[in-house]
Amino acid sequence: MSKARLNIGLVGHGFMGRAHSNAYRKAANFFDVPYEPVLKAVCGRNRRRVEAFQQTWGYESAETDWRKLVERRDINVVDVASPNDTHAEIAIAAAQSGKAVLCEKPLGRNAAESKAIVEAVEKAGVPNMVWYNYRRVPAVALAKELISEGRLGRIFHYRAKFLQDWTISKDLPQGGEALWRLEVQVAGNGVAGDLLAHCVDTALWLNGSFDSVIAVSDTFIKERRHSLTGEVRKVGIDDATAFLARFVNGSLGNFEATRYARGHKALYTFEINGEEASIIWDLHDLHRLQYFDHRDESKLRGWRSIHVTDSDHPYMKHWWVPGLQIGYEHTFVHQVADFLCGLAEGSIPGPSFRDGLATDYVTDAVLDSARSGIWQKVPTP
Amino acid sequence: MSKARLNIGLVGHGFMGRAHSNAYRKAANFFDVPYEPVLKAVCGRNRRRVEAFQQTWGYESAETDWRKLVERRDINVVDVASPNDTHAEIAIAAAQSGKAVLCEKPLGRNAAESKAIVEAVEKAGVPNMVWYNYRRVPAVALAKELISEGRLGRIFHYRAKFLQDWTISKDLPQGGEALWRLEVQVAGNGVAGDLLAHCVDTALWLNGSFDSVIAVSDTFIKERRHSLTGEVRKVGIDDATAFLARFVNGSLGNFEATRYARGHKALYTFEINGEEASIIWDLHDLHRLQYFDHRDESKLRGWRSIHVTDSDHPYMKHWWVPGLQIGYEHTFVHQVADFLCGLAEGSIPGPSFRDGLATDYVTDAVLDSARSGIWQKVPTP
Amino acid sequence: MSKARLNIGLVGHGFMGRAHSNAYRKAANFFDVPYEPVLKAVCGRNRRRVEAFQQTWGYESAETDWRKLVERRDINVVDVASPNDTHAEIAIAAAQSGKAVLCEKPLGRNAAESKAIVEAVEKAGVPNMVWYNYRRVPAVALAKELISEGRLGRIFHYRAKFLQDWTISKDLPQGGEALWRLEVQVAGNGVAGDLLAHCVDTALWLNGSFDSVIAVSDTFIKERRHSLTGEVRKVGIDDATAFLARFVNGSLGNFEATRYARGHKALYTFEINGEEASIIWDLHDLHRLQYFDHRDESKLRGWRSIHVTDSDHPYMKHWWVPGLQIGYEHTFVHQVADFLCGLAEGSIPGPSFRDGLATDYVTDAVLDSARSGIWQKVPTP
Amino acid sequence: MSKARLNIGLVGHGFMGRAHSNAYRKAANFFDVPYEPVLKAVCGRNRRRVEAFQQTWGYESAETDWRKLVERRDINVVDVASPNDTHAEIAIAAAQSGKAVLCEKPLGRNAAESKAIVEAVEKAGVPNMVWYNYRRVPAVALAKELISEGRLGRIFHYRAKFLQDWTISKDLPQGGEALWRLEVQVAGNGVAGDLLAHCVDTALWLNGSFDSVIAVSDTFIKERRHSLTGEVRKVGIDDATAFLARFVNGSLGNFEATRYARGHKALYTFEINGEEASIIWDLHDLHRLQYFDHRDESKLRGWRSIHVTDSDHPYMKHWWVPGLQIGYEHTFVHQVADFLCGLAEGSIPGPSFRDGLATDYVTDAVLDSARSGIWQKVPTP
Repeated sequence: MSKARLNIGLVGHGFMGRAHSNAYRKAANFFDVPYEPVLKAVCGRNRRRVEAFQQTWGYESAETDWRKLVERRDINVVDVASPNDTHAEIAIAAAQSGKAVLCEKPLGRNAAESKAIVEAVEKAGVPNMVWYNYRRVPAVALAKELISEGRLGRIFHYRAKFLQDWTISKDLPQGGEALWRLEVQVAGNGVAGDLLAHCVDTALWLNGSFDSVIAVSDTFIKERRHSLTGEVRKVGIDDATAFLARFVNGSLGNFEATRYARGHKALYTFEINGEEASIIWDLHDLHRLQYFDHRDESKLRGWRSIHVTDSDHPYMKHWWVPGLQIGYEHTFVHQVADFLCGLAEGSIPGPSFRDGLATDYVTDAVLDSARSGIWQKVPTP
Repeated sequence: MSKARLNIGLVGHGFMGRAHSNAYRKAANFFDVPYEPVLKAVCGRNRRRVEAFQQTWGYESAETDWRKLVERRDINVVDVASPNDTHAEIAIAAAQSGKAVLCEKPLGRNAAESKAIVEAVEKAGVPNMVWYNYRRVPAVALAKELISEGRLGRIFHYRAKFLQDWTISKDLPQGGEALWRLEVQVAGNGVAGDLLAHCVDTALWLNGSFDSVIAVSDTFIKERRHSLTGEVRKVGIDDATAFLARFVNGSLGNFEATRYARGHKALYTFEINGEEASIIWDLHDLHRLQYFDHRDESKLRGWRSIHVTDSDHPYMKHWWVPGLQIGYEHTFVHQVADFLCGLAEGSIPGPSFRDGLATDYVTDAVLDSARSGIWQKVPTP
Repeated sequence: MSKARLNIGLVGHGFMGRAHSNAYRKAANFFDVPYEPVLKAVCGRNRRRVEAFQQTWGYESAETDWRKLVERRDINVVDVASPNDTHAEIAIAAAQSGKAVLCEKPLGRNAAESKAIVEAVEKAGVPNMVWYNYRRVPAVALAKELISEGRLGRIFHYRAKFLQDWTISKDLPQGGEALWRLEVQVAGNGVAGDLLAHCVDTALWLNGSFDSVIAVSDTFIKERRHSLTGEVRKVGIDDATAFLARFVNGSLGNFEATRYARGHKALYTFEINGEEASIIWDLHDLHRLQYFDHRDESKLRGWRSIHVTDSDHPYMKHWWVPGLQIGYEHTFVHQVADFLCGLAEGSIPGPSFRDGLATDYVTDAVLDSARSGIWQKVPTP
Repeated sequence: MSKARLNIGLVGHGFMGRAHSNAYRKAANFFDVPYEPVLKAVCGRNRRRVEAFQQTWGYESAETDWRKLVERRDINVVDVASPNDTHAEIAIAAAQSGKAVLCEKPLGRNAAESKAIVEAVEKAGVPNMVWYNYRRVPAVALAKELISEGRLGRIFHYRAKFLQDWTISKDLPQGGEALWRLEVQVAGNGVAGDLLAHCVDTALWLNGSFDSVIAVSDTFIKERRHSLTGEVRKVGIDDATAFLARFVNGSLGNFEATRYARGHKALYTFEINGEEASIIWDLHDLHRLQYFDHRDESKLRGWRSIHVTDSDHPYMKHWWVPGLQIGYEHTFVHQVADFLCGLAEGSIPGPSFRDGLATDYVTDAVLDSARSGIWQKVPTP
């Protein structure tokens, strides 16, 4: 009568480690999932810190060497939530060890790394999923539903931005613990893989493949002190990257990400303009979807602000009552719930590692174009 | 081939004198009106100031005694835009002199004064209209249209507020030129007649008669220096007044006005909740109407923000192109245009002086209730 | 090294039972709490349903008789989350049994019931708290902070509304499972205790005691079928209630709640106007606080939309990163965390049962006034 | 004592002819201008229509040949408000005839035409101004003020969009009366000169010169019927154009215009992100400016929605009282008022024809880049 247990081994216990752990703990409370996720082991390099995390979240054990975790017989799923430069090695080893593999985004630091990861999981035939969590914001899933139902008609425009402002200070160091996103060797690049990648994943899901891109990129603060060594070094990441695109479906794209947009903390927003209807969404009010339908009676046309909290909205019947909003963390719960259901049904829902590779092809093309100044074709994985 | 001319005599040249003059000057440029309003004469007590106004606005002549203006043969319409304590005397004299009479709101300082004015114009049989200009905001007129079409269904709730913050300072004097609204002898009362009256007029128009009211009122700053005499006197006006109401149609009303709502300059707002649909409007974004329709498809229900600038929106085909907004002053232009058309057709559109009296009956009942602490029935005119 | 355990016994497993259970499960993951809450037992009348709930949430045991739960030695805290008509009996028995008692709001069906409960917990000297969860929305807690710091200056106005639209259909039955809120014997009354009580609790917290109130109330649908018996009966609850108030601090209050405001699902909103600054908050976008400060430079004054997700905002350093919003359920987690910390420090934070009684005195005065049509003084507990 | 008169000769009586005429009529009512603009003559090809316009707006005379108007001794100012393909010829002739010249935007159909016009007015030494009216929206002028005061600090990003949806229907014909904006021979190009040009003019004013641009452009509806001939022809205009830019000040630009953004009527919006503060404005709510200042106290930081209607906001002391908004047409009144004052002072305020040429250089570079696919340097005029 009790559910089958699925043992999770988490690598990394930073911001994402918490988000994932919370999701594993909550999924079965709110969703009728076929497996009960068990917090079997968490892995981190620093014993004191990983054990503190273990206790806070109730993991059964702690490891300091990811190789040991990957080899453990009692682990069913390896969840890679460590910095980008570790993804490939860990994910590939986990696949070779026959585990299901979940990996934080971006999959690799570049498409070459990602390709190797994809080949490994596909060769091993293990379930895999990338944590592009924003697909599972109820308002975004509703957007997907509306597009799939054909309500927008022919698409003319897709615009997305991801605006932050947390690196404007010149005194912010690069590298080290919480700041590895500023260090190019660890992160691979800057806002392209960190922020644009979210925009691109959603766009691929909602609007299909990219044909080609032209980009511009800049690094506003040229040198920063390293937080560990204290040394002042050249900053290698892109602080801001924007690109124009042509989609295969004939629509035009406009994408931009920056960490220098004063006033915006995490403003991921997209807008899609179709012949019949348009959609706007933003992460700062993630429980709302703006919708305009030209088929409405002429004098009553207007942007509708849909409070996506009704029971017929995606995922929402599992939560509270209409009008009561959920937040950021719930997107991870949804992903866990979907993963567990897909696992039982033998059909893992996206985004798969191959989907993650598709995003990385776009990122690479964007960064190439920013360097070369010319249009780049985007390969399909 | 040229239009008949209609000679306007304006009494008062303050804020409202400007608004009306602008309306007379613009009406024929934008609307196909049957009469051309001619700025024949303006009247004010101070010769220097009234002549300056005459020149700025292009009036043909200036008077310093309203009695002379009222008696002039070449005046067709007397427009009363002077402080409240002068309305009755001037409007009655104008009616007796056979002129059409337009009067700023509120009609009188109380219902007794207003009743005398109504009797005078009705006895004289002259065209008359009160400047409750907000009826002619396109978004408000659209609300009226939707209600008339029965789209809201049974009405449950009507809420209106008029919030300002310009009298919070203790140092603001009462009385004199621009500050007569703070002097009870001149204004009649405070926010009740100045602000609530607007809310009440719109409510009468959109939701029908009031059955009864219960009110609370307060004067936050008890004494103020008089701007002319310098004397510190008791403040006689209501600084803030709120009331609950039962409408004849069974709906509940909630009304409030204050000049002590920090952060709001002129936030007149109303909301109507019907069985099928609801409406929200506010003066700070007067070119928008918020509309919610329960008959919309369930998962796509949301408040629509209608940008009331399309050619099928009330009045808007006369102005610019969709998306380009008009403002406050245009409500007066609309009222002039409607008045001129009504005059030619022999059917003056509201609000008539009798409509103005209906509002004053509500105001009186509200102030009575605020004093007595008990429910007051509202008489119908 | 491991934390002391605190054994929870939950009575009721409906909507609120879920919200509380989730809070107990999450508190220690996100807050450094001195106790670890243990889900010891859940109680419900229907064995099959209570056991399903037990399994979903991981309770160690299930009871079908609340008396047994209350008497169990291994229970430290009794949490009353069952319908209103059971609060008094259970809470009093729990207090007499020496348990800490948490109770859903409103405390009793009326002040008399609440008074008996307060007397019982105070006589027993047991920790107690009412689940007025909205005090612990970060934006609301920030409002409290700003008021405590004296930033608003003298308060002129307090307005609150709680608007819903879920009972408009005539076909909605009253009574039974999820619909007990429509049955007067069970709920005590309608929107007064269900919705206005939230507004009143927050107001007492933010603006102090009420002096007196005048109210209006209505029941729009007069008869409904009972969901269990099928019988058509008179509806005994108030569908909509509004009241005006005078606060002890001299400010004016305007409160309204209804389940007939088409377009609003759970729009609890309040606005406070002070001499220097004003605040607006609403539950549909609970992660934002609107703030206007008159001391800002004149030409740059405007309502600030504060995205309450920064680490220096109340509670937020425990969650994610700036820009990532939390939702409704987190208010309960905060209440659990505060309760656990208070328990260790020997000083339980509010709202206490006595605070809950204060709200019920207001509710009673409001309903009395709605019946009598006259102002009612509000007693202080 | 009466003012000097300045005789206006208007060429063109479409949408812009009305906007300009209204501005001439109102300027002296609201602003203390040194000249009184006199509506001396209006010119249009169709006698019946031009005379109807003459009568509606009170022009003293009508012409059907612009050459006659330009040569008239009694004309001081020639105002070119006819379609784009006529600008160069008329403006040059007017300059040669010694008139002051005002011209609708864009100045020419391309930079070559504009350059010829600039040379003509500069050779003749006559006052000149382009009607880039959005510089004189009070909120935009306030933005300029804030930037000039150095409040934003180093600029990182400038984004602007102009979104419309009026040409989505395949059945909309091209060419003829109101539809000349769709005909490439008349308009010069599509959204680049019509919409992007507004964005570029404001950007040049607020953020300085462009260094280089990379663009994409598309024509979604490839063929349309001509409204006059009925013939189906290839559409020559750009339906949508977007470009990325590097500004000389080191900031990055992102610009886009389209007539295929369903749901937007005339949504011109820009955002500027500086090191210390950011600004957002949009034309659909033109009376508001969004402002974020990082120097605000940390926990109270938020986007301020400034209702730009106070007397210390640009232009606003000339209109009504705080809280009462003005609209689109007032930007033209402001331009006339500024022009008249500048004329008296011997220093015509911008945008001059040379400023208009600067915009056209950007437009040309953008269209070139859209064709070539490579970055284009932008020449400075």
